[in-house]
Amino acid sequence: MKAPADEFGAWSQAALDEVEQALAREVPADAPAGLGAAMRYAVLDGGKRLRPLLALAACEAVGGRRAAALRAAVAVELIHAYSLVHDDMPCMDNDVLRRGKPTVHVRYGQAQAMLAGDAMQALAFEVLTPADEAELPLALQARLCALLARAAGHAGMAGGQAIDLAHTGSRIDPDTLRDMHRRKTGALLQASVLMGAACALPPAPAWQALADYGAAVGLAFQVVDDILDVTQPSATLGKTAGKDQHAAKPTYVSVLGLAAARAQADALHAQALDALARSGLPAARLRALAERVVDRVH
Amino acid sequence: MKAPADEFGAWSQAALDEVEQALAREVPADAPAGLGAAMRYAVLDGGKRLRPLLALAACEAVGGRRAAALRAAVAVELIHAYSLVHDDMPCMDNDVLRRGKPTVHVRYGQAQAMLAGDAMQALAFEVLTPADEAELPLALQARLCALLARAAGHAGMAGGQAIDLAHTGSRIDPDTLRDMHRRKTGALLQASVLMGAACALPPAPAWQALADYGAAVGLAFQVVDDILDVTQPSATLGKTAGKDQHAAKPTYVSVLGLAAARAQADALHAQALDALARSGLPAARLRALAERVVDRVH
Repeated sequence: MKAPADEFGAWSQAALDEVEQALAREVPADAPAGLGAAMRYAVLDGGKRLRPLLALAACEAVGGRRAAALRAAVAVELIHAYSLVHDDMPCMDNDVLRRGKPTVHVRYGQAQAMLAGDAMQALAFEVLTPADEAELPLALQARLCALLARAAGHAGMAGGQAIDLAHTGSRIDPDTLRDMHRRKTGALLQASVLMGAACALPPAPAWQALADYGAAVGLAFQVVDDILDVTQPSATLGKTAGKDQHAAKPTYVSVLGLAAARAQADALHAQALDALARSGLPAARLRALAERVVDRVH
Repeated sequence: MKAPADEFGAWSQAALDEVEQALAREVPADAPAGLGAAMRYAVLDGGKRLRPLLALAACEAVGGRRAAALRAAVAVELIHAYSLVHDDMPCMDNDVLRRGKPTVHVRYGQAQAMLAGDAMQALAFEVLTPADEAELPLALQARLCALLARAAGHAGMAGGQAIDLAHTGSRIDPDTLRDMHRRKTGALLQASVLMGAACALPPAPAWQALADYGAAVGLAFQVVDDILDVTQPSATLGKTAGKDQHAAKPTYVSVLGLAAARAQADALHAQALDALARSGLPAARLRALAERVVDRVH
């Protein structure tokens, strides 16, 4: 059973508003010496907020508390946004356009951009550890920090970026490419689902099904990203089109070809839906999000 | 009552060995594509390990569990080490020598250095959230993450660095200077003490006394750092001497003068000892560490 598009659209819009307000509340305007301004520039008013939506939808599927999931949503988005700030810097991808605006280092300088990214990573863990235990019990705080730290670190996002760095301009086999993307993009997307689910720890089989869903959606997202990089203009993407191609980055398109990449995205979409069916949870919104990931144009 | 120098020396050496082994165990050699090598280069076999020693000594003072304090010790050192990696980069201090060795970006390139720093920050929170709750109860995991995140982020270290960045080459008043150092260096040193103390939450007055001790030692450390920058050669420091002076950075010496900076360090030392006396805790090692901070030559 599919959620009606308008019901999902209304839910998604309300959730996005909620996330935007929470981000605006949590990212401090008054952090010293322009740091707050750079952090807010990096994370407010932009982005698809896919990770927060996954966290909120997963929390709803397991019947967890909204306030807890909203903190998880803010934390994953902060990690994602910091990674973009650091990725865009001259020593990495050297990109000047992001979400249709100048990148953070272009606007605030490289040093402030690096610090803003560093402070955003720390802030993610601050958001997960509020002083008020009634809002977020200590045991849940610890579980959320554990999931986020592993997804962000050497075994997840940062490790994937290191593989990316090492293989730019060189050939890569499909297994290494998949490993790279599982870490670089997939780990944090999967963690978004699991952090939402952790808000009301479901039984082990449902947890595993959600982990499988998160892994499939996470990889599908990157495959589609690789496809869009070569099929969409910059104006639609809100970032520089064709940049992976120009930078000689290994992508699903460069390794498998466009048609095989599209088939791969569809197969991962089917895996995600299978996993949700296995979970036994009411998961119409997670289904709709998987569809959005595969059918998006930016 | 002062701990005999040889007893403290023996304790300190044993603690350093323990910290070194724990760091070697926690920082993964097998993180992908050279990332693990860069992380290990950044944090192993070097440094005074003052923050880990403070955490371990504070834990002993309150009678907490050693295994918990050792995780806290590793986590604070990872945050400290990552901040040095990012600080040394060309867009920040552009330094080539650290702990007597080429800095991480000189050895591994800027992109890998930035990623290694990012992964080390995440790893600090991984170390604080082990899967084994028997080793570190979930509530303590959450408390340690809360203390560390706040010390590392915009209200602490990253915020202090932003102030530093904004004031390089310009005049600064003594209050702003103190605020900068309290955040930049003081917050993490204080957090080291409090994370050790959190391993067996002491009564509120003792907690406050340890917080005061940590604040005084933290600021004293930076005042002495500023003094050493102008009085010691590079060979003794293991990093480029006079670099703050050359970079026109505001320091206690440039703002107050050398004699007043020395008097300030002594006053902070006295405050630290007062706080320990107030704590009512057996704190010979914390006393000895305060002395080491003030009397050090590198």
